[in-house]
Amino acid sequence: MRMVNLAGAQLGPIQKDESREQVVRRMLALMDEAKAKGADLIVYPELALTTFFPRWYMEDQAEVDRWFEREMPNAATQPLFERARSYGMGMSFGYAELTPEGRHFNTSIIVDRDGQIVGKYRKVHLPGHAEYDTERAFQHLEKRYFEPGDLGFPVWRTMEGVFGMCICNDRRWPETYRVMGLQGVEMVMLGYNTPSVNSQKPEEGLEQRMFHNRLSVQAGAYQNATWVIAVAKAGVEDGHPLFGGSLIVDPDGTIVAEATTEADELIVHACDLDATVFGKTTIFDFKRHRRIEHYGLICSQTGAVPPA
Amino acid sequence: MRMVNLAGAQLGPIQKDESREQVVRRMLALMDEAKAKGADLIVYPELALTTFFPRWYMEDQAEVDRWFEREMPNAATQPLFERARSYGMGMSFGYAELTPEGRHFNTSIIVDRDGQIVGKYRKVHLPGHAEYDTERAFQHLEKRYFEPGDLGFPVWRTMEGVFGMCICNDRRWPETYRVMGLQGVEMVMLGYNTPSVNSQKPEEGLEQRMFHNRLSVQAGAYQNATWVIAVAKAGVEDGHPLFGGSLIVDPDGTIVAEATTEADELIVHACDLDATVFGKTTIFDFKRHRRIEHYGLICSQTGAVPPA
Repeated sequence: MRMVNLAGAQLGPIQKDESREQVVRRMLALMDEAKAKGADLIVYPELALTTFFPRWYMEDQAEVDRWFEREMPNAATQPLFERARSYGMGMSFGYAELTPEGRHFNTSIIVDRDGQIVGKYRKVHLPGHAEYDTERAFQHLEKRYFEPGDLGFPVWRTMEGVFGMCICNDRRWPETYRVMGLQGVEMVMLGYNTPSVNSQKPEEGLEQRMFHNRLSVQAGAYQNATWVIAVAKAGVEDGHPLFGGSLIVDPDGTIVAEATTEADELIVHACDLDATVFGKTTIFDFKRHRRIEHYGLICSQTGAVPPA
Repeated sequence: MRMVNLAGAQLGPIQKDESREQVVRRMLALMDEAKAKGADLIVYPELALTTFFPRWYMEDQAEVDRWFEREMPNAATQPLFERARSYGMGMSFGYAELTPEGRHFNTSIIVDRDGQIVGKYRKVHLPGHAEYDTERAFQHLEKRYFEPGDLGFPVWRTMEGVFGMCICNDRRWPETYRVMGLQGVEMVMLGYNTPSVNSQKPEEGLEQRMFHNRLSVQAGAYQNATWVIAVAKAGVEDGHPLFGGSLIVDPDGTIVAEATTEADELIVHACDLDATVFGKTTIFDFKRHRRIEHYGLICSQTGAVPPA
């Protein structure tokens, strides 16, 4: 057994006028609770430090850049790194990254138990749109404010296992999990900010949207025999509801922990990374069963091309 | 709206000594019931004409070949083709195919409403093993008796829609649906023979195995915005139980019909192929959202290679 005592730190809403320092205080409180519960790894949501700003249409780049971090750690997040190290706790969280070259990414990092950043991921599957859309109930401008990630889906051998990351909409794409599965991933950590309402189909309803969240995460876990933890930012941000439902899924696709609120809430589960072995060596032993000679379209063709 | 009145014709067990003619009579009875319920397309399981013979270890190739069809239609299946044509009903079923060149495939066909075979699929993801395995509770020798399919995952424009097929274990692999999704598939038809017991993990239990079936089919439907119909051969064949749970899933991933027995049983649903449009033009508009530059491993590497 290779046990990871895993904590998912769902965050309730962050309003537009809340400072990073205020948010970090909430994150530290969840970290203290995780420590009290024996956790040695804590996962926070996508864009954990601010409100989900891509819902706001902005034309002034200086206004946009206020939501981005120019270095990590920085003054606001240094206390997170320090406390995690003092606890011997690994950590992952998401933030908006502005590089020295002026590039913008929706990023998450993995920090080991010594407080070192050992991995960085930049969101590949940006949802939404780039220009103001008059037909939506509200805006979702990730394609405006971020470039698609340029790092692929790497994995890292750290904390006695093989860890990977993805972010929010990535979790709906089976390619995300499979690329990591082909690198032997044992734990996928992801955060999300997902509106409770489909801006293009308001009648869809919250339950169906939470079903899609669970379905995507459970299928990714089962089909790659990996643990997956998915952590929400939830609740009503500046009038816009995000759903909760943070969950931990085992390598058989079963939900083992799930949040019940839309507030700051910790979920904890003791995960055995060796529980991935059975699936990886039987039904999902890729080497014996995959037939890449028939998968070509997946990598050669972006859009759907129906027959004539 | 482009309506398909779809029937899934689950078959109960077929014992080793049952003839194809006996089985075809059962299939015809289900077709009659489908006609009475207004169906215009009926889907039968994998290897619909015989018992699931890959559970039996055979060394004599002549004994193996008795389970295969040398032509389609043939004398035993001709009545199916005739009645389907007389009803103006499309049809799909699976059978073991022995080609004139002596090749063996686990095959399914799609027959249009005029009784013409318009498409053939040969199972790509063969589960199980090729040699007698003393460590399993029972044998699953598909890799012994069949070659992997050589036709990829084609789709066909027929019956006013875009149709594809896969078979049994294919449904657990997201690549299966994605290759068809990239060709605009609107309806995936699949049959299965799935043991109620995991031969390598007897404690797994029936409920978990049915959960994996639903999870795989629902994720494939949702993530490609396609209808999927999955039809079982079920019940106890020569002492070996197969599970039922045939189901129809809509392009939003929701189960709309599900069998409740392990016997011959018809499930019916009126499917609007235009219900695929919303997903295919929004969250799963592949052209806008897929990032093939990061998917390379899926097509270049068969097995998993963990980091050093």
